[in-house]
Amino acid sequence: MRVVEILLVEAPHKPGNMAKVLAVIGDLDVTVEGLNAVRRLDEETIWEITIEYDDTLDIEVLIEAINQLPETKMVGKSDRVFNRHKGGKIKTVSKISINSLEILRDVYTPGVARVCEAIKETPSKIKEFTNIQNTVAIVTNGTAILGLGDIGAEAGLPVMEGKAAILAELVDLSGVPILLNTKDSLKIIKTVEAIAPSFGAILLEDIKAPECFEIESELIQRLNKPVFHDDQHGTAIVALAALLSATKKQGVNIKDCVFGQVGLGAAGIGICSLMRDYGVKDVLGTDINPDAMLRLGDLGGQPCSLEELMSKADIVVATTGVKGLIKPEMVKKGQIIMALTNPDPEIEPEVAMKMGAAYATCGKIVNNMLAFPGLFKGTLEAEVTEITHLMRIAAAETLSRLAKDGALVPSALNQEAHHAVAKAVFDAAIRQ
Amino acid sequence: MRVVEILLVEAPHKPGNMAKVLAVIGDLDVTVEGLNAVRRLDEETIWEITIEYDDTLDIEVLIEAINQLPETKMVGKSDRVFNRHKGGKIKTVSKISINSLEILRDVYTPGVARVCEAIKETPSKIKEFTNIQNTVAIVTNGTAILGLGDIGAEAGLPVMEGKAAILAELVDLSGVPILLNTKDSLKIIKTVEAIAPSFGAILLEDIKAPECFEIESELIQRLNKPVFHDDQHGTAIVALAALLSATKKQGVNIKDCVFGQVGLGAAGIGICSLMRDYGVKDVLGTDINPDAMLRLGDLGGQPCSLEELMSKADIVVATTGVKGLIKPEMVKKGQIIMALTNPDPEIEPEVAMKMGAAYATCGKIVNNMLAFPGLFKGTLEAEVTEITHLMRIAAAETLSRLAKDGALVPSALNQEAHHAVAKAVFDAAIRQ
Repeated sequence: MRVVEILLVEAPHKPGNMAKVLAVIGDLDVTVEGLNAVRRLDEETIWEITIEYDDTLDIEVLIEAINQLPETKMVGKSDRVFNRHKGGKIKTVSKISINSLEILRDVYTPGVARVCEAIKETPSKIKEFTNIQNTVAIVTNGTAILGLGDIGAEAGLPVMEGKAAILAELVDLSGVPILLNTKDSLKIIKTVEAIAPSFGAILLEDIKAPECFEIESELIQRLNKPVFHDDQHGTAIVALAALLSATKKQGVNIKDCVFGQVGLGAAGIGICSLMRDYGVKDVLGTDINPDAMLRLGDLGGQPCSLEELMSKADIVVATTGVKGLIKPEMVKKGQIIMALTNPDPEIEPEVAMKMGAAYATCGKIVNNMLAFPGLFKGTLEAEVTEITHLMRIAAAETLSRLAKDGALVPSALNQEAHHAVAKAVFDAAIRQ
Repeated sequence: MRVVEILLVEAPHKPGNMAKVLAVIGDLDVTVEGLNAVRRLDEETIWEITIEYDDTLDIEVLIEAINQLPETKMVGKSDRVFNRHKGGKIKTVSKISINSLEILRDVYTPGVARVCEAIKETPSKIKEFTNIQNTVAIVTNGTAILGLGDIGAEAGLPVMEGKAAILAELVDLSGVPILLNTKDSLKIIKTVEAIAPSFGAILLEDIKAPECFEIESELIQRLNKPVFHDDQHGTAIVALAALLSATKKQGVNIKDCVFGQVGLGAAGIGICSLMRDYGVKDVLGTDINPDAMLRLGDLGGQPCSLEELMSKADIVVATTGVKGLIKPEMVKKGQIIMALTNPDPEIEPEVAMKMGAAYATCGKIVNNMLAFPGLFKGTLEAEVTEITHLMRIAAAETLSRLAKDGALVPSALNQEAHHAVAKAVFDAAIRQ
């Protein structure tokens, strides 16, 4: 598995010196993700070097190599990531500064009573006079946190706060992490149903398959509010966006292609479902789990073996979590391949290209944070109770359209892209 | 019942003119709560006049009287309170501006995974690297919203947002409104228990008696986190603070007094409980509900009739919601009387004083927002799992000590008072 580390290296402040340090790092097959000068001393500079390396590498070997350079030494590891998490990443603030008795008496007692009575009389006014229509519960039980697996809801809180911070920064929505320490689907459903009046929408997050399917579909049934499992549909939207861009590059129509999905977990099922909704007729899929294969059948897809899928599909998307699952010899000439498992894909893009793929990429470009902020913004502004496939497709098409300079999708921090997604989702919601 | 209204009045911009308008208002026994010039025209000014009046008054009579003044007319009612609620009063923000790929990759994937793993390994690190220890769930089922009664959780959201805004503004805590549409105590208990991992503490709010007692005590049992029902204990803390100040003025020791509580709902029981904890030996109480009388007995108090209570108690606190319940002839010479029902007390302070009370006041000064912000701040900083009576007493003593200029308690917007309460509660929590 690839891991990230941030080294603090003290080196003489001389031309060409940092090049030598980076060359040593590169020689050990370690990639550099970032470089900051964090302190300037008399003769030296302390550099913060963010590296990503395979954990089969003994990091001491790298440190030793750096220390061998003249006047250069590793002085420690940076706590930057942890420092940026100190005290958490989100907080609740008051939209109005409560600095006078008049304001206090308007926003709290006695004034607030009039607003309560207005909502009591006309319940829809809750959307006008409270923040509820900007509020998204981010619900997890911690069973599938990133690639870390079942680490528990509390250990997953930094991810939920990260999602909330992204919602706040990109589309000014209020995310509220809700941690549930249970693997009982019915208990999750009942708890979310009980607290649902507090929120404008529900984002289900990092709940493992197959429970995630039942939990989501049951909540959609029970609640009169948007419910969205990001691991399924967020990933699917960004994957579709990337495929729309990739097929356009190749001059083919995605609807005419045979689509093959390798791995039918949350993301895989979400992708197959959206492909079917988009109008792709032939959706093949494979998984080692027979129940997952049945689930694909229910969606109108065709379960098959990995070998058959690779031999038939024009487009292959893989989301298995298994490094190197797709063998080079399986690649069909002219295939478009997106091997999305992070950080180690099912097949390295260079290998796939060498074996005749028309286009190949890996998971780094398919960041599902491209979808959920704009999707929730548009949905909540449209005040609809469901996120339909038309809204998901509108989001994907917008992301593809806004991709620039040969990229398949826009940058994750591109504010305009998020607002364009919100607008497209809003329009689709109103139109349908 | 007394209601608040904000009138917009256009009047000539001449010396003495506003005095005439206010005189007309005063003549109708209507109090003025605030006065703002909101627009200056050529010859006139438009004034926003906040008034409070008894709803037995026909407001048209007042408007007619204003319009009779030369060149003066009422031009409408102000939407100021509603304007200040537009879009809600709170929101979630990111503590860090996510404006570079480096920051994004630290606070979200891949960096965040390291923080998740650290918490997985050492669960207490959740307090260091997330906002959880600053987060308070504000839970209501809407059965006792202010004086409005059972208007439902959703109509109560503006109050919960108000509490959250106050927590944010005064002590930098993150309040999260949780609305539960149920009157089933067990369901409330189970739901709060299920979501409790998401929060540092639980503030129960505007849940009616007697359910509030069982819900609070059961949650205290089940959860390893602070649980606090504000209507009981917040009110009790501020009432004790006010009584400490009032008895000091009278030169008596509260512990030697016979204390009488009129009304044994949430606030009344909370007050009796804190009085007992403080060391007051004789706690009398009365209520029309026999179960409430039994509950007082369980606390070591003595149930009795209203008449007996009034004839024996040195200090009387009333929280019944019944205007004028205490008849003038019931007042005992030298009594300290706090009739807390808002906006119309059980006995008007002037009447009580006329009948021989040593000191009398009403509910406007006992604002429970004096207690909960500092109490939660100190409790969460001390990282204790329970809010004990020692902590509540420390809060009350601090509020009494900080009262200035003849007031019984500090101003609700006095930041230093809130921080002093937090400090006192923190110290008490650590010491015990």
